[in-house]
Amino acid sequence: MSEVRESHVDVEVRYAETDQMGVVHHSVYAVWFEIARTELCSQTGYHYADIEKMGYNLVVTALSSRHVKPAHYGDTVRVSCTIDRLFSRGVHFAYRVHHGETLLAEGRSEHIWLAAATKRPCRAPEALRRPFDRLAGQDQD
Amino acid sequence: MSEVRESHVDVEVRYAETDQMGVVHHSVYAVWFEIARTELCSQTGYHYADIEKMGYNLVVTALSSRHVKPAHYGDTVRVSCTIDRLFSRGVHFAYRVHHGETLLAEGRSEHIWLAAATKRPCRAPEALRRPFDRLAGQDQD
Amino acid sequence: MSEVRESHVDVEVRYAETDQMGVVHHSVYAVWFEIARTELCSQTGYHYADIEKMGYNLVVTALSSRHVKPAHYGDTVRVSCTIDRLFSRGVHFAYRVHHGETLLAEGRSEHIWLAAATKRPCRAPEALRRPFDRLAGQDQD
Amino acid sequence: MSEVRESHVDVEVRYAETDQMGVVHHSVYAVWFEIARTELCSQTGYHYADIEKMGYNLVVTALSSRHVKPAHYGDTVRVSCTIDRLFSRGVHFAYRVHHGETLLAEGRSEHIWLAAATKRPCRAPEALRRPFDRLAGQDQD
Repeated sequence: MSEVRESHVDVEVRYAETDQMGVVHHSVYAVWFEIARTELCSQTGYHYADIEKMGYNLVVTALSSRHVKPAHYGDTVRVSCTIDRLFSRGVHFAYRVHHGETLLAEGRSEHIWLAAATKRPCRAPEALRRPFDRLAGQDQD
Repeated sequence: MSEVRESHVDVEVRYAETDQMGVVHHSVYAVWFEIARTELCSQTGYHYADIEKMGYNLVVTALSSRHVKPAHYGDTVRVSCTIDRLFSRGVHFAYRVHHGETLLAEGRSEHIWLAAATKRPCRAPEALRRPFDRLAGQDQD
Repeated sequence: MSEVRESHVDVEVRYAETDQMGVVHHSVYAVWFEIARTELCSQTGYHYADIEKMGYNLVVTALSSRHVKPAHYGDTVRVSCTIDRLFSRGVHFAYRVHHGETLLAEGRSEHIWLAAATKRPCRAPEALRRPFDRLAGQDQD
Repeated sequence: MSEVRESHVDVEVRYAETDQMGVVHHSVYAVWFEIARTELCSQTGYHYADIEKMGYNLVVTALSSRHVKPAHYGDTVRVSCTIDRLFSRGVHFAYRVHHGETLLAEGRSEHIWLAAATKRPCRAPEALRRPFDRLAGQDQD
């Protein structure tokens, strides 16, 4: 049993992401989570773009976030992602957004694997099972 | 004790809201929820834009959604909002998104009142207490 | 030669569309233009979603806008679209955004028809030629 | 007369930026342009966030783009910005977006300086004149 892997992406706040309260709009966090999830997935050796080309989608079925402090234009925030739970047919991810040492937000998302051709739930693509196990700290080496 | 009020807004899916899976991106639902929340708030007699001009912000502290079926470009979806719980210093809202009779998604958001001048938590603005009670079905008439 | 047809869509400004200057971010206008273009296209009898299902894309090759006055959260703006020029292999659209009588912005976009299967430029789909001629005021009835 | 300075920012395409055509939606380019403009501005020694805190806004009055080839999820594009023309009361910027050696898009934006307090056009803030001259290759050193 090895360690859970975590991705870290530095994201510079975009002006377009702010709202008239002068802070990043809460809907943007789901987009930032996705950037860190993309980065974590690519640690399997497959970019998520390639996973889709293999005929699979990892579809969001649930999403939650808790917002502690706002992010501002001019900030560079660090978005982190880990696998929270791994299923034969889905994945739960966990996220945190920091500005320096300060936690701004945290979140979770639940996903199921869909076969793109049939749009039906399916098992994780064969090629990704070991790599995802490893990211989740569940490899038996 | 009267009935809980519900807002309903018909939203035509925008092409820009779709992603390469051919469905509306999950981050868009938070924006749709907000449209129905704006509509519900305006049933107090005050548009949320006016509430901000009075010096108050109703800030999102938590957000969650469950995604059952996708929305597509060409669809007009109905987004509904109710007050789920009312506090002296905050509000929880609940949301549902339907396409025809089909439930696409549901969600919740938690908010606290901030005084814009101090950026500190505060009690709901005086003028809005009775109207929000009424929306929440808690008026004593 | 009949009259050029114009679509009109009333769009309520979304909070998420504002930025920290307290106005709608300029990138949003391209999205609003698209809503009015979708509405104009649907006056052919075919929703643009159906045109895509027929195997065609009307791809943006150029876009321009002039921004005269800002739009604000709380405003409902009217977005209008006409066909500016019609080609065998493309269309130019023109847009205007008003708040009441006040012009907020105007724009133009240039598009070419692509066959989705080959991703190559092609002539306008047969079924749409007469309807687009009519929208452009070029029908011979 | 020295050389015109150019900013370069590498932007990884976000899934949320794609649309159902499988490419980045054209409205996103204005957001990318802004990222490169922010980077160029920060070469004055002032982040644009600080310029706003000084009481000035550099407001978009016109925007145009030409779209040559699409960007895809999985791509990292390079967005570049230069000052195209400099006025006492405004700035024109020029942009290019490349994927590797391939030009995907180019654009221009026109801006005027507004005093935030009065929301009226004004001259460029004193502190920024020399730095902007230098970016535009118009310094006399």
